Amino acid sequence: MVEGRCGEPGPGAITSRVSSPGPPPLHPLPGGMRDLLPAQARRRRALSQAVLEHLDRAGYALVTLPAFEFTDVLERGLGTLDPTELLRFVDPESGQVAAFRPDMTPQIARLVATHLGASPPPLRLCYEGTVVRRRSRRARLHRQLPQAGVELLGVQGLAGDLEVVALLASSLQAAGLSSFLLDLGHAGITRTLLAPLPPALASEVSAALEQKDAATIERRLAAAGTGHVPAPIARALARLPDLHGGGPRAAPHRQGAALLQEGRDVLAGTPAAAALEELADVWARARAHQGGVLEDVLRLDLGEARGLSYYTGVLFHALAEGPGEPVGAGGRYDDLLARFGRPLAAVGFALNLDALAWALGAAGVPATPPTRVLVTSADLEAAHDLTASLRALGVAAVTHLASVAPDAYASAWGFSHVLSVGSEGGARLTRVASGFVRSIEPVGVPAACARAALDLIQSEDPTSEGDAPCPPS
Amino acid sequence: MVEGRCGEPGPGAITSRVSSPGPPPLHPLPGGMRDLLPAQARRRRALSQAVLEHLDRAGYALVTLPAFEFTDVLERGLGTLDPTELLRFVDPESGQVAAFRPDMTPQIARLVATHLGASPPPLRLCYEGTVVRRRSRRARLHRQLPQAGVELLGVQGLAGDLEVVALLASSLQAAGLSSFLLDLGHAGITRTLLAPLPPALASEVSAALEQKDAATIERRLAAAGTGHVPAPIARALARLPDLHGGGPRAAPHRQGAALLQEGRDVLAGTPAAAALEELADVWARARAHQGGVLEDVLRLDLGEARGLSYYTGVLFHALAEGPGEPVGAGGRYDDLLARFGRPLAAVGFALNLDALAWALGAAGVPATPPTRVLVTSADLEAAHDLTASLRALGVAAVTHLASVAPDAYASAWGFSHVLSVGSEGGARLTRVASGFVRSIEPVGVPAACARAALDLIQSEDPTSEGDAPCPPS
Repeated sequence: MVEGRCGEPGPGAITSRVSSPGPPPLHPLPGGMRDLLPAQARRRRALSQAVLEHLDRAGYALVTLPAFEFTDVLERGLGTLDPTELLRFVDPESGQVAAFRPDMTPQIARLVATHLGASPPPLRLCYEGTVVRRRSRRARLHRQLPQAGVELLGVQGLAGDLEVVALLASSLQAAGLSSFLLDLGHAGITRTLLAPLPPALASEVSAALEQKDAATIERRLAAAGTGHVPAPIARALARLPDLHGGGPRAAPHRQGAALLQEGRDVLAGTPAAAALEELADVWARARAHQGGVLEDVLRLDLGEARGLSYYTGVLFHALAEGPGEPVGAGGRYDDLLARFGRPLAAVGFALNLDALAWALGAAGVPATPPTRVLVTSADLEAAHDLTASLRALGVAAVTHLASVAPDAYASAWGFSHVLSVGSEGGARLTRVASGFVRSIEPVGVPAACARAALDLIQSEDPTSEGDAPCPPS
Repeated sequence: MVEGRCGEPGPGAITSRVSSPGPPPLHPLPGGMRDLLPAQARRRRALSQAVLEHLDRAGYALVTLPAFEFTDVLERGLGTLDPTELLRFVDPESGQVAAFRPDMTPQIARLVATHLGASPPPLRLCYEGTVVRRRSRRARLHRQLPQAGVELLGVQGLAGDLEVVALLASSLQAAGLSSFLLDLGHAGITRTLLAPLPPALASEVSAALEQKDAATIERRLAAAGTGHVPAPIARALARLPDLHGGGPRAAPHRQGAALLQEGRDVLAGTPAAAALEELADVWARARAHQGGVLEDVLRLDLGEARGLSYYTGVLFHALAEGPGEPVGAGGRYDDLLARFGRPLAAVGFALNLDALAWALGAAGVPATPPTRVLVTSADLEAAHDLTASLRALGVAAVTHLASVAPDAYASAWGFSHVLSVGSEGGARLTRVASGFVRSIEPVGVPAACARAALDLIQSEDPTSEGDAPCPPS
């Protein structure tokens, strides 16, 4: 948040200025829920608008899904759900158990099967909404997670993978994030290696893979013995946590080609070898995409074990400085739509808008401060007329009615300017961030005064806090 | 929905074209939930965007609230809630009962008390979100109701009432609705008249007032006897259903001034007389507002009994052809904020975006058909380059990958144009709605071809289905 040159906080300062520093909230929220105050809410709305406009331009049609579903729809998509991960309740009308969606992709599959059965593929759909997850390692502090995402249905293999991986990257750029990494993995690698293990052991090893904890993997598999786990598979599982890297600054022996070769050695003779070759194809094509725009962003993660149970092919996660979780994640899930009655290849991603907002803040991407004008006058009618004229020009404007001084009110509520109408018809325009004042000569009608004020505002340098030194105080 | 001149449906036809006409949905939704398909979802998003932009311009700062709250917060705002009106569940972490918000105003009160305690009044806040109500007469078919609304806090009496009534009207106009009526009432009229009645009787009479059912009111009050209900109050309650009207086409004896005079006679000597005078003031000032822009919209409803229990002053409902429920409603609630620890006068409204979308459809307000270009070529690389060039110009574009013919695909998925790249570098631009075709000469680079296509698109008359007769087929 930029401080004003004259010691006044900038117009983005609503949150910090109006927060009560005193006692803790009197009215707690259910765990993980939170409010967004004006500066955050405006930024969030602008963020989702920028992302949805980008997805629209890419040809993805918006659909809107209900906030909850019967659990059998969710479980058809997600497999047996851990009841502690869901917020469930009994639908009073049907007596069936419903739950807040923890993920929107099964809903898209249901929507496509139910409403879009006759539509020719490929389907390009996008969505925005909130998912609810109980606290867990993955969802961490926030239980209500705002997402925006896409699903590309009916485009198999590489062509679909590339479109969606490139769209994830360009969506982050459209949101203003220039610095991020994109980890590519493949669901088939860990899935085929874990398949022969007893379920409890597979679950333990999967959790250790997620933590990239090779020591635990080795220990668990050794304890289980080769009777349960063939030796090549045990060896491969223990090596996977290390097969991660290949980013732009990787040492030569850790670059993508080297990692892939090491992976081929490790996975040779295991059922995971085929998945690795698919991943190698996506990696090569993604690096070459559009003349190499993604070269500096892509990494490999052969031991990727995060991701929802429906993924069947390429997996990807976008990571940025700041939030301790991906800003976006997705992958290919070619079996899911068939479970709802319309078999279609599918690949998609979801952005975590909370994490993305966090990453933008950490990267110092400034929120565009809005132009908001507080109009003040001894003559309330004159002020109302000028306010109406400013709004007619598309400028946010409010007539000052508060008992506190206009400058204090403007500063507390994020107004960029105060426009004071004088008794002779002229006006003074004060830029709140700098205290810089300019005069508007008497111009007759309010519309002309509003026009003159807008011209002055538009002539300002938006990157500076004011056009001239502060006037003497 | 406009049919194309050559028999092709217009670009807004996604919903009807891609809906499966066959068997009923295989995967039912919980009662009252629904999906929005692309044409509806786009329209809904544009609607909420138009409303939020208008509220922003009026100086209302957006806040975002969680989808559910502990019931004690909701009940502190709404009074004892009928459990059948709420969707409740036990928050697994705290063990407390939480519920989906049936209304966002108590949440605003909680937010203001919790986070904005130090901010100088007046507070102008707006919000958008979904409330969940169980089916009832009021919420009818939909249980998930999308709303956008405002709260003006800290402006007492007429000044606040007028600002918010005028903002409700201008918000509907900003959304594209030109024809609506605005009923003004006052919570104090029915509240003070019902106060002396035994609770069960008051509830019955209130329900009959809501139905404007004078016969039932008379019957119930007569059965109760004057021991329970003073005669002037019984007379007044039975007359209230008739004191409704005063619209632009009202007969002379039913115009606003006549209704108010009749109301004064009916309420003379009852405790409701003071509330009626407040309503008369708001009525007179609202009619005079901005030179009379609201004159043709305002009506009076002295027996207004709808409205949430926290209202204390003026009440208003906006009605339009189509939906059987108000497109927007609000009122003054000067006691609510004190219940959360920060006493502030308050007045606000919420728009029902479902009802508003319905009213816009009924009024024949056309949804702006989006420009979406489907790019097709024998050379996939050339098509990809052209698609990227169109997107760089801000145009939604997709490379055609489907196995169905481009025209059929474009028509099913709401594309406005098909751009076919020829082998010699030229292209053909087809307007989907009309089948009208124009040629683009070979221009070298994809960016120039995209620019030429955009110039042709922008030269079209957006109100017609095509610029020339259909070519012979």
